[in-house]
Amino acid sequence: MSLEQIWIAGSWQAEPAPLGELQSHDPRTGAALEPRFPISGEATMRTALRAGRAAAEELRAVAPERIAAFLERCASNIEADRDALVDCAHQETGLPKEPRLRNVELPRTTDQLRQAAAAARSRSFVDAQIDTKLSLRSMRGPLGGPVAVFGPNNFPFAFNAVMGGDFAAALAAGNPVIAKAHPGHLATTRRLAQAAAEAVSALELPAATVQLLYGLPSELGLALVGQPELGATAFTGSRRGGLALKAAADRAGRPIYLEMSAINPVFLLPGALSERPSAIAKELAGSCTMGTGQFCTKPGLSVLLAGSAAEAFSAELVTLLAAAPLGTLLSGSGAEQIEASLALWTRHGARVLRGGKPAGAPGFGFESTLCSVSGKQFLEHPEALQTEAFGPVHLLVLADSPAEMEAIASQVEGSLTGCIYSHTQGEDDALYERIAGRLRARVGRLLNDKMPTGVAVSAAMNHGGPYPATGHPGFTSVGMPSSIARFTALHSYDQVREHRLPPELRDSNPSKLWRRIDGEWTQRQL
Amino acid sequence: MSLEQIWIAGSWQAEPAPLGELQSHDPRTGAALEPRFPISGEATMRTALRAGRAAAEELRAVAPERIAAFLERCASNIEADRDALVDCAHQETGLPKEPRLRNVELPRTTDQLRQAAAAARSRSFVDAQIDTKLSLRSMRGPLGGPVAVFGPNNFPFAFNAVMGGDFAAALAAGNPVIAKAHPGHLATTRRLAQAAAEAVSALELPAATVQLLYGLPSELGLALVGQPELGATAFTGSRRGGLALKAAADRAGRPIYLEMSAINPVFLLPGALSERPSAIAKELAGSCTMGTGQFCTKPGLSVLLAGSAAEAFSAELVTLLAAAPLGTLLSGSGAEQIEASLALWTRHGARVLRGGKPAGAPGFGFESTLCSVSGKQFLEHPEALQTEAFGPVHLLVLADSPAEMEAIASQVEGSLTGCIYSHTQGEDDALYERIAGRLRARVGRLLNDKMPTGVAVSAAMNHGGPYPATGHPGFTSVGMPSSIARFTALHSYDQVREHRLPPELRDSNPSKLWRRIDGEWTQRQL
Repeated sequence: MSLEQIWIAGSWQAEPAPLGELQSHDPRTGAALEPRFPISGEATMRTALRAGRAAAEELRAVAPERIAAFLERCASNIEADRDALVDCAHQETGLPKEPRLRNVELPRTTDQLRQAAAAARSRSFVDAQIDTKLSLRSMRGPLGGPVAVFGPNNFPFAFNAVMGGDFAAALAAGNPVIAKAHPGHLATTRRLAQAAAEAVSALELPAATVQLLYGLPSELGLALVGQPELGATAFTGSRRGGLALKAAADRAGRPIYLEMSAINPVFLLPGALSERPSAIAKELAGSCTMGTGQFCTKPGLSVLLAGSAAEAFSAELVTLLAAAPLGTLLSGSGAEQIEASLALWTRHGARVLRGGKPAGAPGFGFESTLCSVSGKQFLEHPEALQTEAFGPVHLLVLADSPAEMEAIASQVEGSLTGCIYSHTQGEDDALYERIAGRLRARVGRLLNDKMPTGVAVSAAMNHGGPYPATGHPGFTSVGMPSSIARFTALHSYDQVREHRLPPELRDSNPSKLWRRIDGEWTQRQL
Repeated sequence: MSLEQIWIAGSWQAEPAPLGELQSHDPRTGAALEPRFPISGEATMRTALRAGRAAAEELRAVAPERIAAFLERCASNIEADRDALVDCAHQETGLPKEPRLRNVELPRTTDQLRQAAAAARSRSFVDAQIDTKLSLRSMRGPLGGPVAVFGPNNFPFAFNAVMGGDFAAALAAGNPVIAKAHPGHLATTRRLAQAAAEAVSALELPAATVQLLYGLPSELGLALVGQPELGATAFTGSRRGGLALKAAADRAGRPIYLEMSAINPVFLLPGALSERPSAIAKELAGSCTMGTGQFCTKPGLSVLLAGSAAEAFSAELVTLLAAAPLGTLLSGSGAEQIEASLALWTRHGARVLRGGKPAGAPGFGFESTLCSVSGKQFLEHPEALQTEAFGPVHLLVLADSPAEMEAIASQVEGSLTGCIYSHTQGEDDALYERIAGRLRARVGRLLNDKMPTGVAVSAAMNHGGPYPATGHPGFTSVGMPSSIARFTALHSYDQVREHRLPPELRDSNPSKLWRRIDGEWTQRQL
């Protein structure tokens, strides 16, 4: 049985010593898909690290314009292969071809690559600081080693270890990438890597600028993130996997950026609920079932005041969820994980109002599900009741008073987002202040009257948040140029002769880079 | 025996259950000093965390102007108590009153507090981003919990857990501080805390804005940095202590910033050495013996080509070091630690050219010491020969060729600084490029023709570097506003109603804050 080729040190090659094989599955049928992909071993990991380290040194001499052109060519190559990529990702993930894959995720991915190219060209991420009195200058530079990227299952294009956001950000900063494909979409990842390989070659970048492995035994994955040759690791996925990698990287003192699970609480203040219950119910049902609930920012629970308004709202939500088409889960283990979370919730007092069962066999699916629990029970078991259920599942938390809503806000664990729906004419303003005050330090992005599932690629986005949503509250994994900062080191130059400085810090400033000179942002030269 | 009072939850009070007591020592005589200070227990730690968390919430409602005024009052209070502070620090550390304590470190500390005040007032650290099309805005906000600060022994003012750089940066960002005094200068720290207490009270800040403990058993120190109530930890000190705290904080997912040991390599290129050997020898001897070699940025080793020039340079250095006055080490264990490092060096091939012994008994001291080792031996044992010797001790690494110098540069471990001395007329330019290329990713601050011991408080400073010099290559612990970023979280606001936004992100911009609006830095309003 021949296995697909890995892409290491600039060449597509058979894994010399496969430790096993991987296959994607069609989630709509459960059937295993050909071809098969190798699980790599330690020798390949070492080769990739060595080649990646050499590429990191070579990339220092490559003009940013060439990296920008590479990222743009990646985007064009994806567009040129659009039909095949969409077919492939659809087969491996069950995500709808239209609008999701073709009209939403693919353009988002190419836009992200082009925004990264623009940042690489403009150098907007380097945060150049010049102290003329002391002859001291600083900027953000590359890490000096490759970035290992572990992509998640739920975005086969936009967060793919090849061509996704971490890939784009790491390269924009001048770092090579060692990509570890997600086992849920191996062929899509390989196809994206072929598009990247054409661009590496066309732009004559170092051969190991991008490398691709399909699988590593878990002990080697843990070893990888702790290697001194590595610049950093970026991981998007489950809390369990992320925390294991975090521990291994931390022990070795290697930077790691994680985007893990999040409960994304929604607070429905009483004025909003009495003003526009149906509109909010529709938004919430849509946000919970979009992508079959498999978004990092899916709202996992809502908090509202118990009473007749809540009962009506809950009934309307049940109707909407019942009417939603049955979606496809990304993996065969998805339903099992949701059932485990539901079991934990119900053991701690939650009731299932609708759904609660796997569906769609032999394909992978789960009924749209609504549960509820009292605020009192939530406050007794805040950890269990914030366990993520990665699918079309939502928990209503019925508080007995505004004060209890506030107490619940104080128990929210670190999350990517927090939403507050409030009365348009100000009836909720006092309670808003109290809830927002509690939420602000607990979430990365605070929203008003808007569901969190859209994550725009903007400089002002924060797709991040306090632990355990991520490993550090200061970084975002989405947004250009902001997400690039993760893959940079702070480089200061003290009385370094002017001609030896990086172009961004020299006296002249032909590209009109924004720099902070003696405390003022300016585009002038010195 | 009465013990000095701790400062917890806004009041000076006796430690209710002391687990032991601490005394500073006069390093010039070795004598233990009165008064005595308590080691606190778990109850006090819990009280401090609870009060600190409450203070963090209260501080959100305090105008930045008031925090700025507080930091400025801290500076004035230090100046008003200058004589007593200098006497106290001199007695506890043996550092010279003049110029070091009175004319250098104390003004540096007050300048740092005033720079932090200016940053708190101007909000220059918030990095405001506005995306007008998406109604998405972001900024850096406080962490939501207190910052625990562990200060080092070597700067009783400038890096003190109270009034030092981490204190100033944490407060400028709006976080309370829980200070853990260094046991080497307990009375100085208490005196600084009294100056801070007056300012807390004068500006009517929350009572627990600053708290002070003198000691915790090591298991409680480890517990502290992992508490969920804590916003972050800042530690400056030994690698051993720092790594233990890092492991505890990492396990709990709490941010920790560490500034640990560094070898600070100096590369003396052949042209520079033939052009101006005596001038370089004087600079190097001065940098190695300044503060009795107890600076984080003390040059620990120099790399130069073996041969007659190196021999003459080495002889000149021996003469200069022999003529340097015997300095005082900060602690009784200092000489022992230096001897352990020297023993490790000599076991791996180093020879002692001068010094090598404790001195000054009963006071704490060590002879100015020069060692040498061949480049070949260094390349065989790069880790052992980069073990820090925290004192007036330097290692010459004699390379047999420029290529070996380059190979040595490739073995430099993560360090705060790296210096290259090169010929003024360009004779060393080709070798410079090769060495600098290797060093750049391994050090935080790269210097030309300058010793690293001066660490200016500037926006372009990087007092940081790759692991193991620190825990993260992206942050600096010195410099305003740059060092403040460590104590912030990224806060995004998505369609949050305008009147609910923090002032920094509202449409109006009365203070002319620099903000990036749709990609352009500007001081305009919307």
